[in-house]
Amino acid sequence: MSDDAPTAAMLVIGDEILSGRTQDTNTNYVARFLAALGIDLKEARVVPDVEAEIVAALNALRPRYSYVFTTGGIGPTHDDITADAVARAFDVSIGYHPEAFAALEARFPPGEFNEARQRMARIPAGATLIGNSVSVAPGFQIENVFVMAGVPVVMRAMLEDLAPRLKRGTLVRTCTIMAKAPEGRIAADLARVQSQHKAIAIGSYPYYREDGAGVYVVVRGRDPAEVEVAGSLIEQSLRALGIEPMREKD
Amino acid sequence: MSDDAPTAAMLVIGDEILSGRTQDTNTNYVARFLAALGIDLKEARVVPDVEAEIVAALNALRPRYSYVFTTGGIGPTHDDITADAVARAFDVSIGYHPEAFAALEARFPPGEFNEARQRMARIPAGATLIGNSVSVAPGFQIENVFVMAGVPVVMRAMLEDLAPRLKRGTLVRTCTIMAKAPEGRIAADLARVQSQHKAIAIGSYPYYREDGAGVYVVVRGRDPAEVEVAGSLIEQSLRALGIEPMREKD
Repeated sequence: MSDDAPTAAMLVIGDEILSGRTQDTNTNYVARFLAALGIDLKEARVVPDVEAEIVAALNALRPRYSYVFTTGGIGPTHDDITADAVARAFDVSIGYHPEAFAALEARFPPGEFNEARQRMARIPAGATLIGNSVSVAPGFQIENVFVMAGVPVVMRAMLEDLAPRLKRGTLVRTCTIMAKAPEGRIAADLARVQSQHKAIAIGSYPYYREDGAGVYVVVRGRDPAEVEVAGSLIEQSLRALGIEPMREKD
Repeated sequence: MSDDAPTAAMLVIGDEILSGRTQDTNTNYVARFLAALGIDLKEARVVPDVEAEIVAALNALRPRYSYVFTTGGIGPTHDDITADAVARAFDVSIGYHPEAFAALEARFPPGEFNEARQRMARIPAGATLIGNSVSVAPGFQIENVFVMAGVPVVMRAMLEDLAPRLKRGTLVRTCTIMAKAPEGRIAADLARVQSQHKAIAIGSYPYYREDGAGVYVVVRGRDPAEVEVAGSLIEQSLRALGIEPMREKD
């Protein structure tokens, strides 16, 4: 499925994901959000709250993809080191952003805008802010990197705010066919259809349930007609094997 | 939290994760599984079903960590390319493994062990098998890399099978304190306790709910006494601010 769609990588920053304490859901949300804009998520990484690891991952990802989205590490506590790491990765200075500082200051009662909270206004030089309708403290964009909060409800608000800045691509169309048959029975047919339609991608995802094994076949591509042709060919092949295909709603 | 515990990386292989179709849960499961053995998961990556991407990620990860765990791409269909990619990464040949071939052949009725299913017995030279009590088709270990299925129920069975091969480390002890207070209020105290106890890691994870905002403070370390001391210091600090700490069961 080669094309000139915008591409993206996700960089999840946080010890709590790697320790297993927290199940990351942001990557899946970002993947779906970008898919709806025609942007392909090509890679995801999770790194710990260690500056050198964040810098290395960011500098590996940002030249490779149209966009990089990071989540986590922009709060007020000592373990929130993402803004500094991003400044280091871009080799720029970091300081209080007047607009972010003013917005945060206005949020707190007099005397409660302490040093820790002021940290959330520290933004790398040259970055623009990403709005946060949930808890005010902004994310930021520097070049092709979007730095967002890790708390899902805040990250989602930031995605809404930054979406208009993204270049959109042609949507990927999907056709999903479920079959109550082991994938080993249908593998040769899937391979044949794939070899005849190289511009689409056919994925085969088996499941095992109490009532038996089966498979979801997912056809993906940017040409709706070709996706439909490939989907129909697969359905024909299944019927020829005596397997009733069930088209899922996508 | 520097120590000589075994380390690990996770490599999730699969277009379905990056497209957003499937929420990865294997990384979280592996993180918890390894934590129970005293092994630290240090990094996770998700790459698409593209051989060059799998090879590059594997060769970046395997020299850096004690172990690498991969999930996905070892089934019978054309999009299952992990075994070949691993052979390429290690620059070894790949062929039918007699034991895997025999086990798979015995599983199917005469005439149904077709070419696609035989593919699941293709194992890189020098690898040892990982048992699969769910669907027979094995995973494999080559050097410090463990190659597992992507279907969660199968991956979990494979983890059980391979666990005895892993070197264990000292368990990380955790103390979790919940406070119904914004983290900006307690940040300075957390930073102070962290600076006094560099062998433990203090994480601060805010939440936003209908009944207000709050924070989970997680203290992690391999010395149970120091974790308890740091946890108690944090509880003292919270009480001094008029915030009642609630110790979570870990």
